[in-house]
Amino acid sequence: MTEPAAVKAALQTQAVETPSWAYGNSGTRFKVFAQPGVPRTPQEKLDDAAKVHEFTGVAPTVALHIPWDRADDYGALAEHARKRGLRLGAINSNTFQDDDYRLGSICHPDAAVRRKAVGHLLECVDIMDATGSKDLKLWFADGTNYPGQDDIRARQDRLAEALAEVYARLGHGQRMLLEYKLFEPAFYTTDVPDWGTAYAHCLRLGEKAQVVVDTGHHAPGTNIEFIVATLLREGRLGGFDFNSRFYADDDLMVGAADPFQLFRIMYEVVRGGGFGPDVAFMLDQCHNIEPKIPAIIRSVMNVQEATAKALLVDAEALASAQRSGDVLGANAVLMDAYNTDVRPLLGEVRADLGLDPDPVAAYHRSGWAETIAAERVGGQQAGWGA
Amino acid sequence: MTEPAAVKAALQTQAVETPSWAYGNSGTRFKVFAQPGVPRTPQEKLDDAAKVHEFTGVAPTVALHIPWDRADDYGALAEHARKRGLRLGAINSNTFQDDDYRLGSICHPDAAVRRKAVGHLLECVDIMDATGSKDLKLWFADGTNYPGQDDIRARQDRLAEALAEVYARLGHGQRMLLEYKLFEPAFYTTDVPDWGTAYAHCLRLGEKAQVVVDTGHHAPGTNIEFIVATLLREGRLGGFDFNSRFYADDDLMVGAADPFQLFRIMYEVVRGGGFGPDVAFMLDQCHNIEPKIPAIIRSVMNVQEATAKALLVDAEALASAQRSGDVLGANAVLMDAYNTDVRPLLGEVRADLGLDPDPVAAYHRSGWAETIAAERVGGQQAGWGA
Amino acid sequence: MTEPAAVKAALQTQAVETPSWAYGNSGTRFKVFAQPGVPRTPQEKLDDAAKVHEFTGVAPTVALHIPWDRADDYGALAEHARKRGLRLGAINSNTFQDDDYRLGSICHPDAAVRRKAVGHLLECVDIMDATGSKDLKLWFADGTNYPGQDDIRARQDRLAEALAEVYARLGHGQRMLLEYKLFEPAFYTTDVPDWGTAYAHCLRLGEKAQVVVDTGHHAPGTNIEFIVATLLREGRLGGFDFNSRFYADDDLMVGAADPFQLFRIMYEVVRGGGFGPDVAFMLDQCHNIEPKIPAIIRSVMNVQEATAKALLVDAEALASAQRSGDVLGANAVLMDAYNTDVRPLLGEVRADLGLDPDPVAAYHRSGWAETIAAERVGGQQAGWGA
Amino acid sequence: MTEPAAVKAALQTQAVETPSWAYGNSGTRFKVFAQPGVPRTPQEKLDDAAKVHEFTGVAPTVALHIPWDRADDYGALAEHARKRGLRLGAINSNTFQDDDYRLGSICHPDAAVRRKAVGHLLECVDIMDATGSKDLKLWFADGTNYPGQDDIRARQDRLAEALAEVYARLGHGQRMLLEYKLFEPAFYTTDVPDWGTAYAHCLRLGEKAQVVVDTGHHAPGTNIEFIVATLLREGRLGGFDFNSRFYADDDLMVGAADPFQLFRIMYEVVRGGGFGPDVAFMLDQCHNIEPKIPAIIRSVMNVQEATAKALLVDAEALASAQRSGDVLGANAVLMDAYNTDVRPLLGEVRADLGLDPDPVAAYHRSGWAETIAAERVGGQQAGWGA
Repeated sequence: MTEPAAVKAALQTQAVETPSWAYGNSGTRFKVFAQPGVPRTPQEKLDDAAKVHEFTGVAPTVALHIPWDRADDYGALAEHARKRGLRLGAINSNTFQDDDYRLGSICHPDAAVRRKAVGHLLECVDIMDATGSKDLKLWFADGTNYPGQDDIRARQDRLAEALAEVYARLGHGQRMLLEYKLFEPAFYTTDVPDWGTAYAHCLRLGEKAQVVVDTGHHAPGTNIEFIVATLLREGRLGGFDFNSRFYADDDLMVGAADPFQLFRIMYEVVRGGGFGPDVAFMLDQCHNIEPKIPAIIRSVMNVQEATAKALLVDAEALASAQRSGDVLGANAVLMDAYNTDVRPLLGEVRADLGLDPDPVAAYHRSGWAETIAAERVGGQQAGWGA
Repeated sequence: MTEPAAVKAALQTQAVETPSWAYGNSGTRFKVFAQPGVPRTPQEKLDDAAKVHEFTGVAPTVALHIPWDRADDYGALAEHARKRGLRLGAINSNTFQDDDYRLGSICHPDAAVRRKAVGHLLECVDIMDATGSKDLKLWFADGTNYPGQDDIRARQDRLAEALAEVYARLGHGQRMLLEYKLFEPAFYTTDVPDWGTAYAHCLRLGEKAQVVVDTGHHAPGTNIEFIVATLLREGRLGGFDFNSRFYADDDLMVGAADPFQLFRIMYEVVRGGGFGPDVAFMLDQCHNIEPKIPAIIRSVMNVQEATAKALLVDAEALASAQRSGDVLGANAVLMDAYNTDVRPLLGEVRADLGLDPDPVAAYHRSGWAETIAAERVGGQQAGWGA
Repeated sequence: MTEPAAVKAALQTQAVETPSWAYGNSGTRFKVFAQPGVPRTPQEKLDDAAKVHEFTGVAPTVALHIPWDRADDYGALAEHARKRGLRLGAINSNTFQDDDYRLGSICHPDAAVRRKAVGHLLECVDIMDATGSKDLKLWFADGTNYPGQDDIRARQDRLAEALAEVYARLGHGQRMLLEYKLFEPAFYTTDVPDWGTAYAHCLRLGEKAQVVVDTGHHAPGTNIEFIVATLLREGRLGGFDFNSRFYADDDLMVGAADPFQLFRIMYEVVRGGGFGPDVAFMLDQCHNIEPKIPAIIRSVMNVQEATAKALLVDAEALASAQRSGDVLGANAVLMDAYNTDVRPLLGEVRADLGLDPDPVAAYHRSGWAETIAAERVGGQQAGWGA
Repeated sequence: MTEPAAVKAALQTQAVETPSWAYGNSGTRFKVFAQPGVPRTPQEKLDDAAKVHEFTGVAPTVALHIPWDRADDYGALAEHARKRGLRLGAINSNTFQDDDYRLGSICHPDAAVRRKAVGHLLECVDIMDATGSKDLKLWFADGTNYPGQDDIRARQDRLAEALAEVYARLGHGQRMLLEYKLFEPAFYTTDVPDWGTAYAHCLRLGEKAQVVVDTGHHAPGTNIEFIVATLLREGRLGGFDFNSRFYADDDLMVGAADPFQLFRIMYEVVRGGGFGPDVAFMLDQCHNIEPKIPAIIRSVMNVQEATAKALLVDAEALASAQRSGDVLGANAVLMDAYNTDVRPLLGEVRADLGLDPDPVAAYHRSGWAETIAAERVGGQQAGWGA
């Protein structure tokens, strides 16, 4: 088994990016339940994110979503983050909430709508320049609801054209992370429905275009860790949007629905050399009914635990069993790591970082929840609409 | 093959109930796209529904959703309907849009919340008394998002208790239609997730409790027509919420995603003696991106076409092939009906009713879309929130 | 948290039934890979099962499958088992491997075929009388491949009639366990496709008729633990056929594909009072590529580990968090038990029983695999065909 | 709408390849039901295939499966075909039925097994040279059943290496068609599980490597026509293995489970320029319970009907509605073609070819079924094993 010291060292360098929008309200089409203390501004979201980082030690960056986090002065926003020990992470575009986008954005049949959408994407790159963000994360709600509604192939052509224009705008050290999703909000076709489509577009765009794997965006039964292994082999895994699901894109806390799957994914990340700066580990979740900050802390911890187990896999014993065709033996090596209770180890990792071994308890003791519930009164709570 | 005259006679008696909320705005969690001319009041919804009935001849009733269609005077609302050739249909309850219902309604751990929810259901029966509605349609968003969040069994006990109280309140000729749904908005457990659970509760309640099959509420691969056949055999099929889907509860126009499935369902309805007043044929759809009234007209027509094909199945030839174990022959009898173009036949049915054979074209010529777009300016468009 | 001593005591009384056929060859439609040392006779299967019990201490019974385990003298077979510390468990019928059953068995359109199938089921009850088995486990491959092929409802009538005849034959203390399965080998309809159908038939039959949950027999996304909780609440959970799957009825080792699901299932068993003699815990797996005996030992251990974790759930803390609507707190209580490494505890359980704490290692050291590979040469290896 | 004459002309040039193995016995892992008159030799399979072509006029080629159709003299076999108006089509490899392949073939951890598998693939190219076949169709059962069993990435490397060696052996005008499949017989990972993986390998191999879409090889909810459109856009659609399914790889008659899906697929083929010699339209089905020859005739007819409807789509009206964002109008154009009863049109197509308009009836009248049942007595019926 890997040396515990090496595992601990690796875990101390781990970085999980939290999404600004997870600190705001979210819900289903049936209802958005408001919660006390929810941020009203991007700044307040960063304040909450700082708490997550304070208690976990491994959440130093925060992804922004434009226009939900639109600011007059992104430099000032970055400075707000910096003062709290944070950096601004990926810039996430939004081309699905204007009335113009009813039939799509960069794949829309009308060139004027496509123009507008591309303009927004280019603006996002401007924002990256201002915030120092490295990654432009693109998810498109584009698609159709009814057979015949639009031309599948023509939409691909429009998609390729728009992506090329945005790609050309990327500066040095900037990347385009292209996300795929099987369905929702489009219910017949989605223009980037699977990793293969995202991959094919990235290939044509160039090295800066990478695929993002959102763990909730697949058809039932899809082997996500296989996709992870394949994208790493092809050099095209840009990052993750972590969450978990029992059914569709449920956006539950990562690791909540299938912790074994998360472990298998992290094992392939480690195996494939993806545990490093080139693969972005981001959360993308909706805390519809549970308090948001402790849910995000728990999610970060779940990623840590899965990572710890993945790092603990005895690579040599595994390879040996695999080579000899020992099905049960190889499986047992993997399961031995999975069945290990890594919470004590992570407690040590945190103690070494000067943190409380139990981040959730520490957060609850901090009184932050009560503070924001008391102070954030009035105004408009942040949500997907703003 | 069944006599065309008998088929036509049957088709002329068909009745499809349209839902008031389908005339209002709807959307996904990502966006609700507003449309011009959308009703602001229950009365305007009925005006639109009257157009659907005017051009199809088979949509004489309209389901209400409380509180979205709350009225000061339900008798007056019923009269509004009557003057337009309509009747008020099923009353649909809503126990998922108050902040109190974050963790459930009649299955909530807190008795006070359950009390409130039951109160709403009882109010719905009061409304039925006022409107002359026969059916109380119950769908519960209740469930949990995380393992351990609540006690599955205790929630079943609460569910049973609440349903019993409401059931006891039903008057003569009134029914409780209990709907099930696999998931959404709850993502781990749903308290009435499948037909078996709904059936078990109905059995304990009594004869007035019947199961509703929403065609979008099943796990992938579920054979819906089998459920229909089974519920008819058990005498527990109360009705349908028709729509269609490619993935989850997409709520597309019925027949749009899988017209062959709709045909198979209607075949089992006919086969099992369900084509009559005891089974309610209701639509429950979301016209998120397409104009609502013509979409509903098209949906009614799709149900008619599937029904016509089901009625055309040569029952004698089919039974004979089945008895002799002629797999291909039996399948061919069914497919012969499915492959028939029944649009001319339905044109005749409409002509016999004094209608235009092409309801969609007639609607477009009527100028109604332009009228409501011009007149319904200002105010608050109806949607799921109101 | 539950007292460790009580947990250990409960674990020592656990009993997992292993299936005779899992010791024989199995495969997919593409290929059955033979393995060295596979039993040729029911007696040799029992010899292998005795090894599983010897090293785990909790596998005292073996299910038989007729005709695969047909014997001239079932009393002698039971005696063969008894001498090895085993008892014969459930009798599994087989009405899917005769040419007569191409279109079904007890649901076949031809009364003569139904007659033959019922005769076989009655014979199985005769065998139960001879072996002292308590449970008749019924799984039917019956169904259709093509729409129209046969009449869904008529097949239900035939099913009900046949089950009633067999039910009437059951003696005192004997039960009928009715298993459901979504699909395979039938690909359009299956005559007992879901728990609701099995439940409805059991209700009509009487108290001795109970539902069996095979963990691989559901549609994607089905919440199996919910079904378990519901059947326990209804008093109709007869037992489990344990295995695991990523896709369909993969029949992998239980706990291999989704150990968290297995834990959730076992938690509902414990919660619902199902951890006792009335619920049969049976394996039903196919070890297509891995050695069979150690795979079965591993499977038994996986059930034990999931059970141990379920028993460790702090029921009081959980109920408290649930009552107060503390979503994250309640989930954390459950996850705390799941994340516990119970292998040391189970090592103690085994040591208390006088067993090696590591059953797999002990088996490998025993030399049994080498013995049977050397001795079981010639003859016809047992498989699904014999 | 497209001119009927042009549609008829196109339909007369259509070619559907039937698979030799569909004339032999097949089944599930539970049972293979033998049927009377089943061929014993490749020659007899060709005799049956000739009947399908005789009555449909559009099935001029037959795919072979090696070793199931192994012959001493492939030239003589081709001549046997030629005399009956047939040509030999794609050569299908088999690397899943030797005991050596328990853990894979060209992805096996043992180089010797990989060597053997590659040798078989090279032999298949030799056979192509002898038969004049253009396409080498590769489907691999390779994969793993348990997490950790083997190294996902190493298996991809082995896959790439083996494919490259075989690709290099292809002669002028020969193609490699690479098929993907989600699962079965492997239940955890499959080494070519989706179109993206097949596409990535084909890209690296070169222009002669093309992807094959088997319509039964996808996760639930996958939009197959989207994949078809994408592969055509990328110039990588080599052909189809047609069949249909309700659940997994059911291998039912194409068009039987979802005729609307088949139409949508054929529409994308036509739309994307795939209706021509570069895309192979092959059947790959299992007629487990129905008579094989009439089932194949029906399948060919189902492909024809879907194609006819696809050709009838009014491309101009569709494009116009799509351009103007008329969701319902565009959908209606597509549905108008789908709802058309094309059987009379296909009757004319057949009459123009000098055929009976009803191929199934003509086949039944021909007495061939009785002839082969009487003559093919004794010997070993062909099946997947031989």
